[in-house]
Amino acid sequence: MKKNNPAFSKEVVPFRAQIDVIDSQILCLLAQRQTQVEKVVKLKKKHRIPVYHPAREEDLISKLRVQAGKASLDPDFMEDLYRVILRQSRVKQTDQMEHKGVRPDTKILIIGGAGQMGCFFASLFQKSGYEVRILTGQDWGKAKNLCKDIDLALISVPIEKTNAVIEQISPFLEPGTILADLTSIKAGPMEKMLKSHPGPVTGLHPIFGPTSGSLDKQIIVVTPGRNPDHCQWLVEQLTLWGAVIVESSAREHDEIMEVVQALRHFATFSFGQFLYENHAHLERTLEFSSPIYRLELGMVGRLFAQDASLYSEIIFATRERRRLLKNYISSLNNHLEMLEKNDKALFNKKFNQIAKWFGPFSEQAMRESTFLINKLIERF
Amino acid sequence: MKKNNPAFSKEVVPFRAQIDVIDSQILCLLAQRQTQVEKVVKLKKKHRIPVYHPAREEDLISKLRVQAGKASLDPDFMEDLYRVILRQSRVKQTDQMEHKGVRPDTKILIIGGAGQMGCFFASLFQKSGYEVRILTGQDWGKAKNLCKDIDLALISVPIEKTNAVIEQISPFLEPGTILADLTSIKAGPMEKMLKSHPGPVTGLHPIFGPTSGSLDKQIIVVTPGRNPDHCQWLVEQLTLWGAVIVESSAREHDEIMEVVQALRHFATFSFGQFLYENHAHLERTLEFSSPIYRLELGMVGRLFAQDASLYSEIIFATRERRRLLKNYISSLNNHLEMLEKNDKALFNKKFNQIAKWFGPFSEQAMRESTFLINKLIERF
Repeated sequence: MKKNNPAFSKEVVPFRAQIDVIDSQILCLLAQRQTQVEKVVKLKKKHRIPVYHPAREEDLISKLRVQAGKASLDPDFMEDLYRVILRQSRVKQTDQMEHKGVRPDTKILIIGGAGQMGCFFASLFQKSGYEVRILTGQDWGKAKNLCKDIDLALISVPIEKTNAVIEQISPFLEPGTILADLTSIKAGPMEKMLKSHPGPVTGLHPIFGPTSGSLDKQIIVVTPGRNPDHCQWLVEQLTLWGAVIVESSAREHDEIMEVVQALRHFATFSFGQFLYENHAHLERTLEFSSPIYRLELGMVGRLFAQDASLYSEIIFATRERRRLLKNYISSLNNHLEMLEKNDKALFNKKFNQIAKWFGPFSEQAMRESTFLINKLIERF
Repeated sequence: MKKNNPAFSKEVVPFRAQIDVIDSQILCLLAQRQTQVEKVVKLKKKHRIPVYHPAREEDLISKLRVQAGKASLDPDFMEDLYRVILRQSRVKQTDQMEHKGVRPDTKILIIGGAGQMGCFFASLFQKSGYEVRILTGQDWGKAKNLCKDIDLALISVPIEKTNAVIEQISPFLEPGTILADLTSIKAGPMEKMLKSHPGPVTGLHPIFGPTSGSLDKQIIVVTPGRNPDHCQWLVEQLTLWGAVIVESSAREHDEIMEVVQALRHFATFSFGQFLYENHAHLERTLEFSSPIYRLELGMVGRLFAQDASLYSEIIFATRERRRLLKNYISSLNNHLEMLEKNDKALFNKKFNQIAKWFGPFSEQAMRESTFLINKLIERF
């Protein structure tokens, strides 16, 4: 098999030139499409319509799939392509929509607004025309002034400081001010806020890092506290920025987060620790890796690209979490005998029980992860 | 915020109609592009040129990025889009290329050709014009006949049967026949093949499941045994199908696979087992999940959508692997005291050590996984 073939190199020229012309035309149409989308954005702004319109998107995709089939194009390929185009269109729209808030000129105080998450929200509110004030650790002397006439006090400080900060800020708040927090545990802070402030209270947990860049389709859990009607504009604003709101009680939230955050992060941390202890050869290992392992190792690497305290805070947040993690280690110890005895049959039995319990989720996970693996192959 | 707004619904009609026209034009151009690509494929077939042409692809992407910038389109968006288009083009080409092998009419015997992996390769060889014979457990009476005049005997049976099958088949092979296997461990089978067969020997480990559908960019590890020149056509054929070949010694391969396969699968299995023990509420949990957790849970679900024996075979393959897994459990036990004592400082210290060891890989993992998370948001 030759890699350089002069005859081929010559004969292929006109076809490649044709392809380049077609690509330029596609690019030109994409630019035209963008112009039309901008016109729709103007209308949406005028009428205050949210960016994400699932029905329109699904309708568009369905039509294109049918058209693709008729043109001998693979419908899945067409859908893939338009998912990329629609996301870009959403991000563009969100960028432009952000500049008008549902309640511009409202005054907001962000306590801890110099931290990453605080900064992220400060910038979002500012872009949408809100008056944003920041209170950092050094500003407590000015707290009374900063709290004057504010409609929302939003607490964005490390978990272990949250309760103290709630106590400190509450005396300065007017009864009509909303007190809200962004802490990743909810039961403790909610109880404290309801006790310390007689006015509207709501808990928020944005389930993503401040590095995400946009709220597009990101999940924010809302735990209602007091006077939910008063807090409604805030929820609307988050939705308008593209977030998906999930309502929950503080207790349910905390139970689920034990697994979603504490357990998962701890398991990932432990895996990284073991690779480190074993001096695994990461680079050569990646050369040998199927996309799925590359992805799994990527999840581990990703954790360690971030701040240790971000994770230790989550993992060590409550006694319940630490108990869960100890149970996790016990559960692993239960496999020791199976390994000792080389008991493949027991493994298969356990495996099938778990598979049954996972049920239809396994199939869905298979589909979704296969989709991603293909994306990974596409790109890297 | 209203979701139905009659004025908006009316005013948006002409813009959406325009967008639909543009989309139809794009679709039409994509179909034209496909036609041109098919012409290139014909040329490639004629000159036996491989499908994947990294330089041409990167060149094309770079040009389009520049053009995008000039047309006020986001270059990253343009690149995303063309990665999808180029992959589709590659898959199409590979589909069509497959029909001509580098050594058509060569006779191949696949031992275990009724299993999933065996079937997958049997179908690939057949499509490319090879004569494929299958030997299953019931066919040993016909083994002598099946081995007549074959150029390649490819063993695709469960790990624990590999050595016995090598012994059984070798007496029937002519000295010039290549003996090869697809086993996911290499040291044992390589030693056995070299001992049992005096002719050309090569080990192969396709690092992907038989459900992948295509060899496009999939990794196959090759462990050379004897007479690598004789085996060269086989390696060329795998490359022509789109596979990426990684050469390794059997020992290095096995060491790396302890981590990539045994450890990783065991860790995933243990995580699933713990979720099952804890009766975690999978569905509600997913509603609360950031894309990254959805992805991580998807990896776990994916494992349990597959065959238990596929994994038990890998996990229990050798004594070294079982020892490694016991060490992994010990390593987790070392964290117990830290949890007991609520020692966040120790966690942070360990975390930073590991982060340092991961080095630049963390940043790369962050980039890659962020890319995938965006894909996941795009799609689901």
